[in-house]
Amino acid sequence: MKVLQVRFAGGDIGPWRIDRLEAVLGDPLPPAPRLAVLDGPEGSPPIGATWILHGVTSSERYVNRAERAALTARQQGLGRAEATCAPLIPIRKSEAWWELTQDERREIFEERSRHIATGLEYLPAVARRLHHSHDLGQPFDFLTWFEFAPDHARVFEELVARLRRTAEWTYVEREVDIRLVRAPGG
Amino acid sequence: MKVLQVRFAGGDIGPWRIDRLEAVLGDPLPPAPRLAVLDGPEGSPPIGATWILHGVTSSERYVNRAERAALTARQQGLGRAEATCAPLIPIRKSEAWWELTQDERREIFEERSRHIATGLEYLPAVARRLHHSHDLGQPFDFLTWFEFAPDHARVFEELVARLRRTAEWTYVEREVDIRLVRAPGG
Repeated sequence: MKVLQVRFAGGDIGPWRIDRLEAVLGDPLPPAPRLAVLDGPEGSPPIGATWILHGVTSSERYVNRAERAALTARQQGLGRAEATCAPLIPIRKSEAWWELTQDERREIFEERSRHIATGLEYLPAVARRLHHSHDLGQPFDFLTWFEFAPDHARVFEELVARLRRTAEWTYVEREVDIRLVRAPGG
Repeated sequence: MKVLQVRFAGGDIGPWRIDRLEAVLGDPLPPAPRLAVLDGPEGSPPIGATWILHGVTSSERYVNRAERAALTARQQGLGRAEATCAPLIPIRKSEAWWELTQDERREIFEERSRHIATGLEYLPAVARRLHHSHDLGQPFDFLTWFEFAPDHARVFEELVARLRRTAEWTYVEREVDIRLVRAPGG
């Protein structure tokens, strides 16, 4: 549960090739050929970065003990050799979301939208790490990084399509969908 | 619920005179004669600042709808002319706290420790603003700013004494107690 600072830098350098970068809702991000993921505290940004998104891994806001046990039992870490596909999906939620109280957000997030339960169905194929940006004065509230093998590309599309149809997603006011492939050359 | 960035700068300058600055638990902060509170995004720190603590007002993590209604009905804002006393209490909680799930933290915070209900008893006399620092890579997790008139100094001591005896406080591993008075000269 240590806070890990992470920067995602779109530009000319990085081990990930950006195959697609599109705005699902609201303003897009500028196009870039490569992406670098920088773990750790501040430092010089990579040369040629056209945008940098900051986030922190942090304490879980909605998961309860039983859900965490179910997630922990099934999930696998990032960096599996076969997991060469990585979507990065930055989203910002509306003021209306942040005006809700904790119990109301949990109700929408899980009891109505089944966000945790749905993600669980795609474990261990789709690994995931959530980065919080809301408190950092960033243009997005959350940066979610996913990793999976090319064989699981279809099931990942199903996962994002299901989440985008939920009650929770009606509070999303900006969403960018960035699809990356680990590939030499960056 | 907008995120407001706030910096508390201890040094030679500021409208608040530091009358007391003591470590309750863990490392202290260096002594300083004055404190300045800077709202808004980054900028040059005040000349002569010996320490600066960053925090952000953010979404509420534990309050439910009924509790928020009770708080909103009774609380008053910062900056009342008569509220010339202002404690600033930075705390850091242990890894064990952050390893708990949201429902477990809420259980300790309110069902066992009555943090919200206790604070409510001291409204409107003691105004309060919570700043989150955990996700900012700061030395403290929370910076709580209180304001009250000198007449309420005794009831404030009772409030902090009650909170420090709770189950929640067993997770506090660093706490500094800074007592300020609004006074000319800074």
